[in-house]
Amino acid sequence: MDDFLRAAIEEARQGLAEGGIPIGSVLVIDGKIVGRGHNRRVQQGSAILHAEMDCLEQAGRLLAADYGRATLYSTLSPCDMCSGAVLLYGITRVVVGENRTFCGPEAYLRSRGVAVEVVDDAECRRLMETFIRNSPALWHEDIGQP
Amino acid sequence: MDDFLRAAIEEARQGLAEGGIPIGSVLVIDGKIVGRGHNRRVQQGSAILHAEMDCLEQAGRLLAADYGRATLYSTLSPCDMCSGAVLLYGITRVVVGENRTFCGPEAYLRSRGVAVEVVDDAECRRLMETFIRNSPALWHEDIGQP
Repeated sequence: MDDFLRAAIEEARQGLAEGGIPIGSVLVIDGKIVGRGHNRRVQQGSAILHAEMDCLEQAGRLLAADYGRATLYSTLSPCDMCSGAVLLYGITRVVVGENRTFCGPEAYLRSRGVAVEVVDDAECRRLMETFIRNSPALWHEDIGQP
Repeated sequence: MDDFLRAAIEEARQGLAEGGIPIGSVLVIDGKIVGRGHNRRVQQGSAILHAEMDCLEQAGRLLAADYGRATLYSTLSPCDMCSGAVLLYGITRVVVGENRTFCGPEAYLRSRGVAVEVVDDAECRRLMETFIRNSPALWHEDIGQP
């Protein structure tokens, strides 16, 4: 497996160990991880810290030239908010662990010029399937569903 | 002027007084402000705390039924990230102070069922025109432009 997807999965597992939602993300520029994060809805009572947002925040203030060379890894298909962050900053490539348990606007990202690659990783799927089965209300809250 | 847009402008002015980017936002449910915020890129070194995101974070964890009755006010047209947050949570109405100095994906929001109303407020425009003239590099960073 890609080392960067592995790092994103480590983030997801850390979130789960903290009692949170098991989704992780890393931002890679020039072959190096410059930011990493995981969903912090439970841990920080946050409405905006999806894994990808937490990762972008941890990466800190970057310039357009940095984002333009960046790949965002996420264990789960990015939602509308996180996909919007990708578009805002002109991140050119997104690697998705899996999109079976939830699928964000991947076609829209592609229509805006972003390369989206879906790995369909079994461990990413297992983490989310177990979480959704155990905590459906929390999951629905996280994706704005009733 | 609408009291809620006035509150968003107060947030923008507060951000400016802190040395930040003068964009403010409030979230309104059932006629009451449940969250308010302003851009905190400078103040917190944040890559994700646009005014609307700060506002949603301050509002805290809400359920889909809450967001479905909510209106998001912003002094400036929401960018891709903030528009994505509106879509994620199913916020049904967005009131925009102005969209002349920057225009986000308003047509896309409308195509996804969001009511977008543009006030074209002179004070919102003045705040941004002055800021962009004085701090072009910071502004370009905030919207992911070179």
